[in-house]
Amino acid sequence: MANRPLRLGMAGGGPGSFIGPVHRMAARLDGRFELVAGALSRSIEKSREQAARWGIASDRVYADPDAMFAAESARADGIEAVAITTPNSSHRDIAAAALRAGIAVISDKPMTATLDEAEDLASIVAETGTPFALTYTYTGYAMLREARARISAGAIGTVRKVVAEYPQGWLSEAIESTNAQAGWRTDPARAGAGGAIGDIGVHAFQMIEYVTGLRATALCADLPRVVPGRMLDDDCNILLRLGDVPGVLMASQISTGERNGVRIRAYGERGGLEWTHETPDQLILREPDNRLCILHAGAPGLCDAALAATRLPPGHPEGLIEAFATLYSDFADAISGAGGILDGRLPGITDGLRGMRFIDLAVTSNASRRWISFEGEIL
Amino acid sequence: MANRPLRLGMAGGGPGSFIGPVHRMAARLDGRFELVAGALSRSIEKSREQAARWGIASDRVYADPDAMFAAESARADGIEAVAITTPNSSHRDIAAAALRAGIAVISDKPMTATLDEAEDLASIVAETGTPFALTYTYTGYAMLREARARISAGAIGTVRKVVAEYPQGWLSEAIESTNAQAGWRTDPARAGAGGAIGDIGVHAFQMIEYVTGLRATALCADLPRVVPGRMLDDDCNILLRLGDVPGVLMASQISTGERNGVRIRAYGERGGLEWTHETPDQLILREPDNRLCILHAGAPGLCDAALAATRLPPGHPEGLIEAFATLYSDFADAISGAGGILDGRLPGITDGLRGMRFIDLAVTSNASRRWISFEGEIL
Amino acid sequence: MANRPLRLGMAGGGPGSFIGPVHRMAARLDGRFELVAGALSRSIEKSREQAARWGIASDRVYADPDAMFAAESARADGIEAVAITTPNSSHRDIAAAALRAGIAVISDKPMTATLDEAEDLASIVAETGTPFALTYTYTGYAMLREARARISAGAIGTVRKVVAEYPQGWLSEAIESTNAQAGWRTDPARAGAGGAIGDIGVHAFQMIEYVTGLRATALCADLPRVVPGRMLDDDCNILLRLGDVPGVLMASQISTGERNGVRIRAYGERGGLEWTHETPDQLILREPDNRLCILHAGAPGLCDAALAATRLPPGHPEGLIEAFATLYSDFADAISGAGGILDGRLPGITDGLRGMRFIDLAVTSNASRRWISFEGEIL
Amino acid sequence: MANRPLRLGMAGGGPGSFIGPVHRMAARLDGRFELVAGALSRSIEKSREQAARWGIASDRVYADPDAMFAAESARADGIEAVAITTPNSSHRDIAAAALRAGIAVISDKPMTATLDEAEDLASIVAETGTPFALTYTYTGYAMLREARARISAGAIGTVRKVVAEYPQGWLSEAIESTNAQAGWRTDPARAGAGGAIGDIGVHAFQMIEYVTGLRATALCADLPRVVPGRMLDDDCNILLRLGDVPGVLMASQISTGERNGVRIRAYGERGGLEWTHETPDQLILREPDNRLCILHAGAPGLCDAALAATRLPPGHPEGLIEAFATLYSDFADAISGAGGILDGRLPGITDGLRGMRFIDLAVTSNASRRWISFEGEIL
Repeated sequence: MANRPLRLGMAGGGPGSFIGPVHRMAARLDGRFELVAGALSRSIEKSREQAARWGIASDRVYADPDAMFAAESARADGIEAVAITTPNSSHRDIAAAALRAGIAVISDKPMTATLDEAEDLASIVAETGTPFALTYTYTGYAMLREARARISAGAIGTVRKVVAEYPQGWLSEAIESTNAQAGWRTDPARAGAGGAIGDIGVHAFQMIEYVTGLRATALCADLPRVVPGRMLDDDCNILLRLGDVPGVLMASQISTGERNGVRIRAYGERGGLEWTHETPDQLILREPDNRLCILHAGAPGLCDAALAATRLPPGHPEGLIEAFATLYSDFADAISGAGGILDGRLPGITDGLRGMRFIDLAVTSNASRRWISFEGEIL
Repeated sequence: MANRPLRLGMAGGGPGSFIGPVHRMAARLDGRFELVAGALSRSIEKSREQAARWGIASDRVYADPDAMFAAESARADGIEAVAITTPNSSHRDIAAAALRAGIAVISDKPMTATLDEAEDLASIVAETGTPFALTYTYTGYAMLREARARISAGAIGTVRKVVAEYPQGWLSEAIESTNAQAGWRTDPARAGAGGAIGDIGVHAFQMIEYVTGLRATALCADLPRVVPGRMLDDDCNILLRLGDVPGVLMASQISTGERNGVRIRAYGERGGLEWTHETPDQLILREPDNRLCILHAGAPGLCDAALAATRLPPGHPEGLIEAFATLYSDFADAISGAGGILDGRLPGITDGLRGMRFIDLAVTSNASRRWISFEGEIL
Repeated sequence: MANRPLRLGMAGGGPGSFIGPVHRMAARLDGRFELVAGALSRSIEKSREQAARWGIASDRVYADPDAMFAAESARADGIEAVAITTPNSSHRDIAAAALRAGIAVISDKPMTATLDEAEDLASIVAETGTPFALTYTYTGYAMLREARARISAGAIGTVRKVVAEYPQGWLSEAIESTNAQAGWRTDPARAGAGGAIGDIGVHAFQMIEYVTGLRATALCADLPRVVPGRMLDDDCNILLRLGDVPGVLMASQISTGERNGVRIRAYGERGGLEWTHETPDQLILREPDNRLCILHAGAPGLCDAALAATRLPPGHPEGLIEAFATLYSDFADAISGAGGILDGRLPGITDGLRGMRFIDLAVTSNASRRWISFEGEIL
Repeated sequence: MANRPLRLGMAGGGPGSFIGPVHRMAARLDGRFELVAGALSRSIEKSREQAARWGIASDRVYADPDAMFAAESARADGIEAVAITTPNSSHRDIAAAALRAGIAVISDKPMTATLDEAEDLASIVAETGTPFALTYTYTGYAMLREARARISAGAIGTVRKVVAEYPQGWLSEAIESTNAQAGWRTDPARAGAGGAIGDIGVHAFQMIEYVTGLRATALCADLPRVVPGRMLDDDCNILLRLGDVPGVLMASQISTGERNGVRIRAYGERGGLEWTHETPDQLILREPDNRLCILHAGAPGLCDAALAATRLPPGHPEGLIEAFATLYSDFADAISGAGGILDGRLPGITDGLRGMRFIDLAVTSNASRRWISFEGEIL
């Protein structure tokens, strides 16, 4: 089998970007993509600076995504896919343009800045049939996939409770005037209606539905703005119902001292499961007799999805870049026609829509201090 | 200094009791009490059986608490205090009788079965002036006291978020027909209006206010009955506000595989604190620079309250019996006139009232699906 | 069944003692002993001071152990057992006198100061038939007993490697001139031939033989004196052979920052076991498929010896005082004739002799820089 | 600055190889190398199969390393460096040929199969001046570099004890007839004189000298062959002296259930440091007051070497591929003339020689059951 790397462009990812370089390393790691074009910054100089650092030919550095799509579509060796790593408010337009140019899209989350934009984008995906994936990072981890497979196979029986957490502390102080990453995330014009909930709460929400296979049906959200002067939430505490199943979701950017403590726990009739990002190669199983067992990535007996997301034997840590790379490899498979969006393994438009609805409802619930259903009714 | 042990009686604690033997060991450990009388069971035979096992003289085994208080009050060497270890529904009457007989009370939590009973009991305490303490176990741990002292001293700045958890899994199955401990806890007639919330949620609530020094002002509770047929909640998920400060409280008895995972995290402007019952000799500090430091019980530099609650050098684990014993030692000090109820170190009537109000409001909030203030108003 | 507490005396345990109060609390905890007499210090004033604090009647405070044994033997209600908590150099004489007076002995470790004394004491035990126990603390922990039972039952197959560690840091500085505990432990006249090896290395050695059921046959020891001026080892690193099975033993009192990190790991053909004192309620099992399982004290499925050493349900920590109390309860059973020295559950003269031989050989090996067999031959 | 990737060839790494793909991913990750040629297997068919998978042009697949060096040296765009990922016994010859062809070498460890070969290779490096690096993987981890920098800066004072461990369990059974990785590692003809000691013990040894800056001066080794029929050690337990400083090194491939638990602890006059591979983003500091602090990769305040080895913010795990990639980036810097072998950051010929001497002495010590100096004298 020939294994030609697919040609990738990038929107965003200029100097100072956090997630742009992650996309680049992830795309390269397994040799499935090569980054050959970019509209990396609103400033063409900065875009060129980053492109030179990354070995992108200077004639494939563009002033903006539209120019990139136009020029690349005209080349025989034009890009086959684009990574969108810009702030949320530009996701929809860039994605729409790419999809219409027949260029597959792999976009950072949240999918768009508003629910309306998300629904619009969904219809474009449906209409064009061009592959669309969202980098919900944590779904690329082998042991989160193992958790999903085990629950799906009934390992803990019917799920009866779920708790997802995502504590960070980096916005404990009002650093937004000097820190570009903080700047756009706390600015409604660029981030959309959600602050912490849009940036990280949506990860926790997606994990809950991804791992348990359940769908949230109602929520009650408390979205305080803890640091004085903030215009968006920097802390989120949400009660969920997934049908009869109770859930709790906590995300925070003011939990001082926390780094990136993503964690999910699910409890069923016959056991519990826990995964935490600090030790991503592990999956904790809780047995009814209080025995706690830890499974390790790469070990025998894990599901195919976990094995496919593992490069090394047990005891050899893989991290976030590898998880991200797994999403890129899945994306390569999807583009290559290995199957729609890969049986739900790779998050796409459905997850994106769910996430935007979640943000929208949580903001409404917080404002009204009421429980609200996923159909939008106050309960 | 003479160090005569105080004379203690016990109500409850018959064969099969979990908490009765804990009270007894805790009372003995530091030599401040000797257990000399008891109304240990509704069955006098069972009461005698346990009394023999415990070395209580047969003429001081009583048919019921009232008989015990009457006879002991008439003895020159009568009991000076009584430990109440019965199911919740009898707490009020036993405590009231003891207080009126001038016998100091150390009672298990929750204080009573209902808020009305709690308010009634509070007035009796005020009226009689007899010492009254509640065994909120976790407040006896040295490192939880250290957490409280540090927050009070401003170590993490203004508290901005608090999360308390209390997961258990032992009621994951409907064992109440065969397990006496489960039986009364799931029976509204004996447990009161709260199931898991009354049994363990109230511990988590008390910890939040004890550690942070804040007072809850509003809540929104989801109290599902997960196991079919339950008449009381077996899982609790609660959003809190303590003034502007957001909080989350989770308690559960259907989290399969969990043992007794009490945990509290508080985040302030300048750091975070975390204590977990699985490693009770440790207190975790989170620094803004992501440095995580673990303090150990017995080490230099801890507060007086922590040192007073520690018997061994660092690295020599102390557990729940010792924490409970610390409450008994504090109680001995309180009876001996060493100072009211010890500057809030030892939980008493105020904590008891707060706990009962918390349960009452949570039940109301759950039924109405609304946020509710601690003044009882729907928000 | 009558449950009269046995009458206990204590030698040592005066003001400032660390282990004396532990013996006292442990003896009391389960109600099997009451401390009624003592020769607590070389200074009668200090002995009286401590006795008053502990509620020992003033007429049962003695100038020295011999006086205690003489007077108590003459009383109808004289002591039935004595706890020896003095520095090592006086263990033999006190134990010998008690044994000859028919008073059962529970002594702190190491058994004596020298191997000759140990052999002498062994013959007195054999001759008098009086019960003799050694408080190898860690053998009182439920989960260490579980480890032993599992290995004995073949759970990990033939044992093929064992590692025991005991790091402490409290002697990192030369505090011996101001700290009484450090003073006698670093003084050959009071501690005997071993420093760290006699104080804590011997615990690690006893654990190895206790848990694996194997017997050491050869060793090669490196016993440096790290802090300048020390006359005894303050760090021990020892290669062991138990027949063909390799072992490593590390004990240290200069591992700065360590508290009391006792830990044992055993590996067999079909699995591994690990127990660490920082989380004593847990036992780690390692499976060949890399699954790591943690068992918890009090849970179903544990061995009888573990259950008998557990007072609380899973998730309710027990610590060193409880472990010590288990030894006292076993000792009470042994005195009461429940069976020799309890089928090896409770360490006694055999463990004591093994420990003293271990110390003796390690000192010789260190001096000669050679491997040495347990028959004393240089290999 | 142009950032042209350097051209890399590979010797070894054919189908079934573990470390070959790691080298490839690591070389790619930071974009400093592109793999363009290979002699990947003794079988040209297998070599072609892997080359196709990896996108290596078919005309740059060679029958053996000599052919590769000859042909590539003749190309204007020939390889500038070669990665050696074959079994130990061929390291010397391949490296020698590359060095003499002026092609920089990055080789897996141990450097050679014997000490004689190592000395020979060292002279070739000296003679040719061609860059030579060894992939001692763990030295690529940011927090191990932080440990080294802190000790070098005196953070824990004079080092007084060091313990390195490397437990694995994958050779607990005699799988060598069916597992190619096990096959060559247990075969003296391909592995050299050391089994576990050569495969992983040498990692632990290099870590000790790398982190502490000390040099071992004597050792006493016990190198059992635990699994019946093995011709090389599968377990290593070694007492070390580094001048006056005691050390312990344990490496094992029969520790059933262990994955790859590399760990190092160093204790000094004023503190201790600990790093463990299971949580590589952390560095544990132990303070004399028993405070244990955990530093996290990416956080403020870490040394330049750690920051340079970190791609992501705190809380975003990096793993073994990233650590390996750091070595490749250092190697790229070294080739590009950024400074010899980078001030000892990147392991090279000196570390290789030390490692081979260590293996050689340990084998001698084990056979003679004696302590032996690093000058080769029996002590």
